[in-house]
Amino acid sequence: MAEKEERKVTPRSQDFAGWYNDIILRAELADYSPVRGCIVFRPDGFAIWEALRDELDRRIKKTGARNAYFPLFIPQSFIHKEARHIEGFSPELAVVTHGGGKQLEEPLIVRPTSETIINHMFAQWIHSHRDLPMMVNQWCNVVRWEMRTRMFLRTTEFLWQEGHTAHATQAEAERETLTMLEVYRSFCEEYLAIPLVTGRKSAAERFAGAVETYTIEGLMGDGRALQCGTSHFLGQNFAKAFEIRYLDDNNQLQQVWQTSWGVSTRLLGAIIMVHGDDQGLRIPPAVASVQVVIVPIWRKPEERESVLGAARAAFAALDTAGVRVRLDDREGLTPGFKFNDWEMRGVPVRVEIGPRDVASGEVVLARRDAPGKESKRKAPIAELPARSRALLDEIQRDLYAQALARREAETRQFDDYASFQKQMEGEGGGGLADVYWCGAAACETRIREETKATCRAIPLSQQIAPGRCIVCGETASERAFFAKAY
Amino acid sequence: MAEKEERKVTPRSQDFAGWYNDIILRAELADYSPVRGCIVFRPDGFAIWEALRDELDRRIKKTGARNAYFPLFIPQSFIHKEARHIEGFSPELAVVTHGGGKQLEEPLIVRPTSETIINHMFAQWIHSHRDLPMMVNQWCNVVRWEMRTRMFLRTTEFLWQEGHTAHATQAEAERETLTMLEVYRSFCEEYLAIPLVTGRKSAAERFAGAVETYTIEGLMGDGRALQCGTSHFLGQNFAKAFEIRYLDDNNQLQQVWQTSWGVSTRLLGAIIMVHGDDQGLRIPPAVASVQVVIVPIWRKPEERESVLGAARAAFAALDTAGVRVRLDDREGLTPGFKFNDWEMRGVPVRVEIGPRDVASGEVVLARRDAPGKESKRKAPIAELPARSRALLDEIQRDLYAQALARREAETRQFDDYASFQKQMEGEGGGGLADVYWCGAAACETRIREETKATCRAIPLSQQIAPGRCIVCGETASERAFFAKAY
Repeated sequence: MAEKEERKVTPRSQDFAGWYNDIILRAELADYSPVRGCIVFRPDGFAIWEALRDELDRRIKKTGARNAYFPLFIPQSFIHKEARHIEGFSPELAVVTHGGGKQLEEPLIVRPTSETIINHMFAQWIHSHRDLPMMVNQWCNVVRWEMRTRMFLRTTEFLWQEGHTAHATQAEAERETLTMLEVYRSFCEEYLAIPLVTGRKSAAERFAGAVETYTIEGLMGDGRALQCGTSHFLGQNFAKAFEIRYLDDNNQLQQVWQTSWGVSTRLLGAIIMVHGDDQGLRIPPAVASVQVVIVPIWRKPEERESVLGAARAAFAALDTAGVRVRLDDREGLTPGFKFNDWEMRGVPVRVEIGPRDVASGEVVLARRDAPGKESKRKAPIAELPARSRALLDEIQRDLYAQALARREAETRQFDDYASFQKQMEGEGGGGLADVYWCGAAACETRIREETKATCRAIPLSQQIAPGRCIVCGETASERAFFAKAY
Repeated sequence: MAEKEERKVTPRSQDFAGWYNDIILRAELADYSPVRGCIVFRPDGFAIWEALRDELDRRIKKTGARNAYFPLFIPQSFIHKEARHIEGFSPELAVVTHGGGKQLEEPLIVRPTSETIINHMFAQWIHSHRDLPMMVNQWCNVVRWEMRTRMFLRTTEFLWQEGHTAHATQAEAERETLTMLEVYRSFCEEYLAIPLVTGRKSAAERFAGAVETYTIEGLMGDGRALQCGTSHFLGQNFAKAFEIRYLDDNNQLQQVWQTSWGVSTRLLGAIIMVHGDDQGLRIPPAVASVQVVIVPIWRKPEERESVLGAARAAFAALDTAGVRVRLDDREGLTPGFKFNDWEMRGVPVRVEIGPRDVASGEVVLARRDAPGKESKRKAPIAELPARSRALLDEIQRDLYAQALARREAETRQFDDYASFQKQMEGEGGGGLADVYWCGAAACETRIREETKATCRAIPLSQQIAPGRCIVCGETASERAFFAKAY
């Protein structure tokens, strides 16, 4: 493997979108594919998805939902059963018209989301109040024919989980919607170290077919917001369309109340855009498939065996302790090249072992999130597993704290429309604007058209005095977060 | 939940296919869907797939392959690049012709398998011998427009893993093909308790585009064979079609040598058909999402609390010990109904706790695979975790041994064609026929046309004297397994 002089990564401050794409390609997370708008998840990128998926799957199962799998294809007529659902998804559908060499009698839609087919099945399975709640989740691919695509954030095909539940009462379904919002929030904050604002969506931003949509929103490194997950209270919209009814304990036929909720591979984009820097990725330790990389360093051939021996012992000690560790014993590459390579890939901790370290029974620990000599620490080899674990915990906390500090610095309250508008002008982000809004669609539209900012979230349970809508000046009882968004 | 008088399951001996469908629906493993040939994997069925997938995934990763994800859609032109590949798959393709409301310039194929798109990417990623071997695996859905479908065994959409590798030399690729065959064999035998015969396929049964296909074949409860997994040596067929070349260490451009290998949700069908009986499923403990079910039994209300208390303590002890356990404390159902229900669902061990057991500090252990009072055992409550684990291990071994004994009883050597043909006549199976075969396509065709049996596997490394082909009487140097197959 020659040490090629590779083109430098576009600086993040100079061109955020260019930086983002460079990082994804250079860290080998994903690649473009020959299919319009579809990407290839390469092993290093897919490993992050697998770690994230396994942890979120555990948390979802804890709430009582069970995994299932429904067909990829949906009969075209199903999509049309819920009026707002088809209105929302109609422009984005991929349609199978031929199968087995023949034209199909009824075209099949490649699922853009599975409310329709799952609720068709729920209608077969739900008969009595004893069958409720019914809670299923599926991990799958979905397809939405997007006009403008961007790796991980918006692709024609993407991977996600979609949960679908049916309940006997409105209160229970509403509770479920908020339970899942909280599962998503705590998962993203604890596991991905991404601080979030949460709240409900405005009518304009609601899921097609939902009564209420709740969202978790992150702020990316360029000051734009990213919707990281949504949880929908569907009311009885789909229950009516698909006739999902049950006998209550008085033997009366009732319609169920429903929810659906999902997060997708878009979260990989969030990790990059929240934590990455000009040297590459910075992967939060909890989700890193390699948490510690060991780089042995020697100059003279006679040093090789003792250094490699110590490196192998360090690997074994960390591996036994359950740390996800990799030994980079590649030949013919300088330590400096390896350092850069692992920094690009975002491995949280690097362990350096040289001849003098072997002699003194020590190793050097370097943090990906705090480059430079001053943050390096020496540790006795015997303490390496304990010290690594403590350091990984510290990095996880620090990445979150750093992202939170930036989010807070980039969150601004505005009382007058002109300052708000000024803040949103210019290239890139603009941060989160926290403003009084009367809730009128007209005011929201004016904001979108004049500032490109959209309503990201209206926080729940606001304990504030009424104020004046930032647009029209009418009385407003709530504040909302507006931002330019991906 | 009322104890309905449900229709009895079709007896296995009377109508194997009817029995098979009854079991799947009654044990709630899967359901029919409104999409032609597609099924819904219900939570109890999907849980088996998840357990199976997680274990096989670990074993695949141990060989050095890493997971990745490639697009669902394949440009139509790609499928045509390898001549035999398109010839084999052409009748089975589902075609997307419209996206985002417009007709596509080039139709997209919903992947029936991913050799073409993955090898297109391999050509971008492989430059030097240092990039080899390249080994990726993906878990995904695939679509093949099947004319006759059967739940799990042959469905229009199914789930599988497909591994794809590229190597510098022919020998290395051939070794990889056999390594994966062995991974599949040991996984199915150890984990699913399904005994297999292994070997290579005849030319007629080979994967479209492969030089050699290797197979693991199981014998189902009706005496028919089921192909449970395949591993293909692709030679340089796809390397040529997709121009996958690397610079060797002499700086010469070379083509790679390749393999691909896969198993699918068809394995769920194999578990049912190998282990199930007239009472329902019998799930091997290793893959059972519930290994032990606890059924508390009481008559008088005053017994309820002490019995339930003991049952909860038993649950906690098993759960802590890592046994996958469920407490069936549903009200209003008789113990007999619960016994039948859990037998249908195939839970390997049932723990019964009644008032007398509580008094004596004991519980009763009942085996799903050995019904009847004589195989029940009492165990002190304190020993329940250890006894359960030992019993689960024993059941795993016994299910395998039982299946192996039946496979051996149903494997017959034939020296004359008439006896072979007679054995294959009649409804259902006929078992495995072990015969000399000269290898000529004409003899294979005659067998297929006259007996409906096909060549399932030609065992590797046969240490036998040459004999006479069972069809033509010419010299044959190999024996092969023929059987009627799913």
